[in-house]
Amino acid sequence: MRRVTLLDSTLRDGAQGEGVSFSVSDKVNIALALDELGVDFIEAGNPGSNPKDLEFFREAEKLELRHAKLVAFGSTRKKNMAAADDPGLASLVSAGTDTVVIFGKSWDFHVERILGVSLEENLAMISDTVSYLTGLGKRVIYDAEHFFDGYAAHPDYAMTTIRAAAGAGAECLVLCDTNGGSLPSRINECTAMVTSEFSVPVGIHAHNDSGLAVANSLTAVEAGAAHVQGTLAGFGERCGNANLSTIIADLKLKMEMDCLMPESLQRLSGITRAVAEIANVTFDEGMPFVGLHAFAHKAGMHVDAITKDPVSFEHVPPSQVGNARRFLASEVGGRALVMDRVQRLEPGATKDSPLVITVVQKLKEMEAQGYQYEGAEASLELLMKKAAGKYRPFFELGHYRTIGEQPSTDHAHCATAMVKITVDGVSELSAAEGNGPVHALDRALRRALERFYPGLADMRLKDFKVRVIDSGGNTGARVRVLIESADQNMAWTTIGVSTDVIEASWIALVDSIEYKLISDIEHRYKAYL
Amino acid sequence: MRRVTLLDSTLRDGAQGEGVSFSVSDKVNIALALDELGVDFIEAGNPGSNPKDLEFFREAEKLELRHAKLVAFGSTRKKNMAAADDPGLASLVSAGTDTVVIFGKSWDFHVERILGVSLEENLAMISDTVSYLTGLGKRVIYDAEHFFDGYAAHPDYAMTTIRAAAGAGAECLVLCDTNGGSLPSRINECTAMVTSEFSVPVGIHAHNDSGLAVANSLTAVEAGAAHVQGTLAGFGERCGNANLSTIIADLKLKMEMDCLMPESLQRLSGITRAVAEIANVTFDEGMPFVGLHAFAHKAGMHVDAITKDPVSFEHVPPSQVGNARRFLASEVGGRALVMDRVQRLEPGATKDSPLVITVVQKLKEMEAQGYQYEGAEASLELLMKKAAGKYRPFFELGHYRTIGEQPSTDHAHCATAMVKITVDGVSELSAAEGNGPVHALDRALRRALERFYPGLADMRLKDFKVRVIDSGGNTGARVRVLIESADQNMAWTTIGVSTDVIEASWIALVDSIEYKLISDIEHRYKAYL
Repeated sequence: MRRVTLLDSTLRDGAQGEGVSFSVSDKVNIALALDELGVDFIEAGNPGSNPKDLEFFREAEKLELRHAKLVAFGSTRKKNMAAADDPGLASLVSAGTDTVVIFGKSWDFHVERILGVSLEENLAMISDTVSYLTGLGKRVIYDAEHFFDGYAAHPDYAMTTIRAAAGAGAECLVLCDTNGGSLPSRINECTAMVTSEFSVPVGIHAHNDSGLAVANSLTAVEAGAAHVQGTLAGFGERCGNANLSTIIADLKLKMEMDCLMPESLQRLSGITRAVAEIANVTFDEGMPFVGLHAFAHKAGMHVDAITKDPVSFEHVPPSQVGNARRFLASEVGGRALVMDRVQRLEPGATKDSPLVITVVQKLKEMEAQGYQYEGAEASLELLMKKAAGKYRPFFELGHYRTIGEQPSTDHAHCATAMVKITVDGVSELSAAEGNGPVHALDRALRRALERFYPGLADMRLKDFKVRVIDSGGNTGARVRVLIESADQNMAWTTIGVSTDVIEASWIALVDSIEYKLISDIEHRYKAYL
Repeated sequence: MRRVTLLDSTLRDGAQGEGVSFSVSDKVNIALALDELGVDFIEAGNPGSNPKDLEFFREAEKLELRHAKLVAFGSTRKKNMAAADDPGLASLVSAGTDTVVIFGKSWDFHVERILGVSLEENLAMISDTVSYLTGLGKRVIYDAEHFFDGYAAHPDYAMTTIRAAAGAGAECLVLCDTNGGSLPSRINECTAMVTSEFSVPVGIHAHNDSGLAVANSLTAVEAGAAHVQGTLAGFGERCGNANLSTIIADLKLKMEMDCLMPESLQRLSGITRAVAEIANVTFDEGMPFVGLHAFAHKAGMHVDAITKDPVSFEHVPPSQVGNARRFLASEVGGRALVMDRVQRLEPGATKDSPLVITVVQKLKEMEAQGYQYEGAEASLELLMKKAAGKYRPFFELGHYRTIGEQPSTDHAHCATAMVKITVDGVSELSAAEGNGPVHALDRALRRALERFYPGLADMRLKDFKVRVIDSGGNTGARVRVLIESADQNMAWTTIGVSTDVIEASWIALVDSIEYKLISDIEHRYKAYL
């Protein structure tokens, strides 16, 4: 089996996608997810053009990655300047990665018209930059920008540019279809030619402007490329970069190539979804292999045939990519899915146990309301405990009231909330201010509960996400709130759904607090045993 | 130039997509849009398996299509039955179309295991069905279901099935990658072989389960296919059918094939969007050629280069497919970016004009607060008008107050809002209820303003999005609200940012209303000139 290395550029090229922007902690979480999947390289930023990216590389020094290497991305040196004097390259080096990606121009039109340098100076910029970095002990992956367009215009010059990079010590020559306009036939021909000339590995970097990024990546591998660049969920400038989740599944399941770590393929769906979730980008459910619709069967004829033999309408078994079959018109979906979790609560449970039936029924109801428990496992666990009768409420809500006012003299306290709760017959009314109604409500609820449950003091909210569910909705549309909480031992996520963002937040907050209290009790119980 | 005929199956295979369902009037409107575009065939339903589809064909008899032919779709006759006795075929015929599409089995596994008939009987079913229909004067397009999987399993049998269809008078043999699992290399090889044996045109019908439907369709055309089936916006079972909008642009702009009518290509973006709009399916803005993001440039370097020459980062001119270039305002873009927009306000402005400097400065401030104007172009335009002194407020806010309460007896009215505004010295206080505080506030504000600006009555909110900006934030984190509004002429998007979701919504709402009022004035002014 041939080995193909993978570079994910979600954090760099993916951030060029419309509507995508990452905080430093988003970047950390995505890097951890990509490492979990087992990609070889994580291209994490361009410190030369975006100083904020350096902050991430500082933060990243603390990360312990199992397999993936973080790489910084930058361009060839500025014209008429020594590489050692170029501030962009200095920033790139200061990111502190062992490997760097350098992009340079292959298309004479870009060299002369856009960069405004001579064809010779461009070659010097490429070889100087690569030599300078290898001289510092860096390993260099060279991205030949616009290679295919450049080759179509002037093949000799395009080839000379990658010879300059290879001659200066680049360890991988990546042919880029930067504008996404090339057909597979051109990709195939050019890649075959380059792989026949060079002994260093050749890579492919495709964009999806013609709807061909996946095909172009695969055809390059067929023609000898051993390195593929893309973004896991297809984020990227314009129509996006080549979708790595699709490419990974095609390479492993259709072309018998070796990539990722063993067993990682089964995590493909979950990790791709996690990356989109962290980016807060709506997940494309029609995405091959990993989308919710990818193995969903609607036509009655298809459902019948699948029941006889799944091969009839499934090109690969969904479990191989961590996905699941769904029958849209029937009620059989879902039950197998919850078995695993139910058995943790009730070890002897089977598919027909009353608990399984109750949980499946309840899940269906909640999903119809807009709940989605992927990524909100603490709420799912509570739902199951409730279904199993292993739950008692920690408090009862009397009522809450929030008031928001503008203009306000003090922006940090523009909203107020009152909460009345009862614990074991004892009532507590509390009030708090906040910089918005959800904030005020959160503070008022904690204040009321801490009298009864002092352990809540070491719980804190890590993240708060809001998403509108109904597309084409208006200000009355339903929203889904996800709250991530943590204490010193663990982190957990809960969900709430409502047309009212305050109520949705309330539901998720209450789940979060109850999950914490239950965990504390279980923890103390185990310590007692 | 080779001619390639196109069959759009949005109304038949597209309706198998999750979340897609059409009323008869949706189907009529989509058929009209597809005819406007100039596809050759519109596959509009399967009257044999779905009696509701007959209703559409009755309705469709009144349609005057310029170019496209409606076709009905059905399967080969039932086993051990004369074609003339098959009720499914009777329904198909009663649809009254000149041309019909018949699908039959090419894969021996499906014949024996799923249909449960002998290989010989399957051949008889194919030829009987096609002969029967041609005998009635119908033209028959034959869809060879699972052809590529069938060919991989038993090439001789797969070839025999299409010989049966051709021998019985089918006018086109369509090779189907029904499960979407084939790689372009297999598609290419099989299609070339079939086109070399048969004199009737060969077609391709691809699904996107491996992310290769567009590539597979194009490679089939390269191998000699003269007919392509797909759905304009890529709707369809599981991951969808081959996306015809992408294929059309690739065929015409990259492969110099003749399809559609002359001039139709410029309507591609608009008509694809209209089909998604009628289907009420969220339009994928990253779609090649036709999406909002397809020609949007975000990286500063790309924006600079495009300004020098669009060829630098655009594989085709957006106007050719009826789309438009957009420069996204973002932290990575710079002063060049705003030039284009500023010049619309102040035609002589240069990079150093005070207005440009003011706008860039203001953008930086707003971005630091969490504003992001990509996709909120109406708010950006207002910001520029304010910077240029070409703005007066339409109303002043006295104050607003929102109250949310739980539990509530009436969920649709669990929140109330009061708004006091002043227009030209005249105050108006109004109140409204809603299913959340934002909803209530939106309604109260409109109610207050409509007295002064009755034109607001024809404005509606199309979409409402909320995103938490500071990740790692808590319930006091800042949120960004995007509101998309529309009237009968246009759609526009505005943005608001605050720690308070209600205030963020308020800001976006006010921008949205002001943008509408300014546009109305400009519109009237132009009409007056």
